Amino acid sequence: MRNVAIIGVGLTKFGQLWEHNIISLAVKAGVLAVRDAGISQRDIQALYVGTMSGGLFVNQEHLASLIADYAGFKNIPSVRVESACASGSLALRQAYLDVASGNSDIVVAGGAEKMTDLSTHAVTKTLATAADTEKESVFGATFPGLYAMMAKLHMYKYGTTEEQMARVAVKNHKNAMHNPYAQFHKEFTLSQVLNSPYIADPIKLLDSSPITDGAAAVVLASEEIAKKLCKKPVWIIGSGHATDHVALHDRQDITTIKATKVAARQAYKQAGLKPEDIDMAEVHDCFTIAELIAIEDLGFVEKGKAGKFVEEGNTSLKGRLPVNTSGGLKAKGHPVGATGIAQAVEAVLQLRGDAGNRNVNPKTVLIHNVGGSGGSALVHIFKK
Amino acid sequence: MRNVAIIGVGLTKFGQLWEHNIISLAVKAGVLAVRDAGISQRDIQALYVGTMSGGLFVNQEHLASLIADYAGFKNIPSVRVESACASGSLALRQAYLDVASGNSDIVVAGGAEKMTDLSTHAVTKTLATAADTEKESVFGATFPGLYAMMAKLHMYKYGTTEEQMARVAVKNHKNAMHNPYAQFHKEFTLSQVLNSPYIADPIKLLDSSPITDGAAAVVLASEEIAKKLCKKPVWIIGSGHATDHVALHDRQDITTIKATKVAARQAYKQAGLKPEDIDMAEVHDCFTIAELIAIEDLGFVEKGKAGKFVEEGNTSLKGRLPVNTSGGLKAKGHPVGATGIAQAVEAVLQLRGDAGNRNVNPKTVLIHNVGGSGGSALVHIFKK
Repeated sequence: MRNVAIIGVGLTKFGQLWEHNIISLAVKAGVLAVRDAGISQRDIQALYVGTMSGGLFVNQEHLASLIADYAGFKNIPSVRVESACASGSLALRQAYLDVASGNSDIVVAGGAEKMTDLSTHAVTKTLATAADTEKESVFGATFPGLYAMMAKLHMYKYGTTEEQMARVAVKNHKNAMHNPYAQFHKEFTLSQVLNSPYIADPIKLLDSSPITDGAAAVVLASEEIAKKLCKKPVWIIGSGHATDHVALHDRQDITTIKATKVAARQAYKQAGLKPEDIDMAEVHDCFTIAELIAIEDLGFVEKGKAGKFVEEGNTSLKGRLPVNTSGGLKAKGHPVGATGIAQAVEAVLQLRGDAGNRNVNPKTVLIHNVGGSGGSALVHIFKK
Repeated sequence: MRNVAIIGVGLTKFGQLWEHNIISLAVKAGVLAVRDAGISQRDIQALYVGTMSGGLFVNQEHLASLIADYAGFKNIPSVRVESACASGSLALRQAYLDVASGNSDIVVAGGAEKMTDLSTHAVTKTLATAADTEKESVFGATFPGLYAMMAKLHMYKYGTTEEQMARVAVKNHKNAMHNPYAQFHKEFTLSQVLNSPYIADPIKLLDSSPITDGAAAVVLASEEIAKKLCKKPVWIIGSGHATDHVALHDRQDITTIKATKVAARQAYKQAGLKPEDIDMAEVHDCFTIAELIAIEDLGFVEKGKAGKFVEEGNTSLKGRLPVNTSGGLKAKGHPVGATGIAQAVEAVLQLRGDAGNRNVNPKTVLIHNVGGSGGSALVHIFKK
């Protein structure tokens, strides 16, 4: 397998983007990434598109072909992949394997979702198709409810508090103030988060990531091409992907996401790194409890210690391990199919030193993307 | 890139399968394929699943994880891919690249769709999401209508007749009589097809593939493993994948599917073969006109000559180039996500000599799968 670098990134604004459809969003991100790489559409040999539910969100399947067509990637192989909210990272991984294998030399991996065309109720129902429809969703389970159960047990077993969870939201909204692409530029105090209405006890409105439109794209290239074309290539040095039982009731322990642990083990092994070698991480904070569980499952702290770790400020911009410098899903926004690629964009901006006021000058960055409540997870590690 | 073989196949009955859901169908095909390969679920390193619209057909996304879980493929990377009606072949191709690259040694590629849970109207609307929703479907275009336009121009430019199209249906229903997995075991005469009601002039009910539930799976392995485990490995010697404008009005010529031509060129080149070297083909006959267009675009005859070629009996079981020995989408059935893999299963059965009364003893088989009206196409070539 060959070395692979990211040589270009593109991102749309995240938010309620009523002037766009999913295709125009994806095309914008893709063309920005191609331009950022200093190449042209004709150079792209394959496209990988992550999107969770074109069918239910915008009544459009076959998006890989539509996006390739409208972006001017003429007649190339274009592959739509889906793994619920981890669809973006899955596109990244498949694109990575395509270049690493020598099958292609330059490919684009993109992610996009257009969620705000539906009512909040319809979005919640659509997201619930990432759970086991016949065993969970049909009985009324939605994602706030599923993560609430995970949070409750985490609180019971490890003494994690609602305040510790709220600190994740406060931090991520603070970080998003420095990210021009973020959906929210609004800080919240701890008491504002704690006093926001319960969605599913103990999860409150301000513990939850929003409904978002957006797209992101990266250009991947082989070592030879990356060194020729790019002054600051960012190398993908580890890629891990695992699945697990989709239904919570099938898992041995719902305070941990096994798919994250298995994927992380693969990525660390490939990179030859340990958790302590990672300088910053973008993790899947669809709810604040998810960030705490991720910090533990990725091996940054022992199980049950993430609440304390966050409370002590270790994950803030100036902390020992900045987490979600972009604002995370929580404040940057969570257009599900785009999220994994947007995490990769943040990794690249940070490693290049292009992340403005939020730059933490890392040498290694880990990104972590989860499908549903943990039925799938992907972990990637990058270095300069 | 390494040599890759198919060492196991699995297929469910195609039809209205009300006792199954999409997961049980996929699991059945997957487990049958694993058993056919003489291995166990634990040996599978990755899964690729093709399905067109879990969201709209059965309100379930995240199917790659669910299927891996229920099939006993514990914690492995599992990738759902989608390219409308070509989703199955896309799963095959991505699985092929995974093994060819050396990333994995044994993987399963599967396809599944559960379509009969919806009304015919809702199925037609769902399939129309494979067209350009905002430019075609929203104005009432559905696939019978789109293919009818292609057929009309083909008739006008090349003198193709409704009778020639009807002969495709007669042949494919005849072939399906020998396929125990086919949805229909019912022969039709030429006049029955010609007198069936128009769906979209000149396409009639009996020119159209049915609505179908079903799943198919194949096990792919590296050369080393295939030679060790399998007495009759079937080698994948060519793989091509291309996209094109999704909307018909964007294409230069709607009597040809450019994506097919580009994908075929890639596959022939990789295999080092020409169209005349192919002994039999499974092609994408969603409508009878599609089989004629495929025969031309795959290079078996000159443009415009497929009607005559079929009329002369060249594509029947005893003809020069048997086409759709399985019964094709027309009579075997067309569970969209499963179709490309089911074509691969037919190729393997034929090359092994396991296709019973329909066996034509080929040395090389080509399979061809189209997304929508040609927004994507994949071509694979196999040999003993």
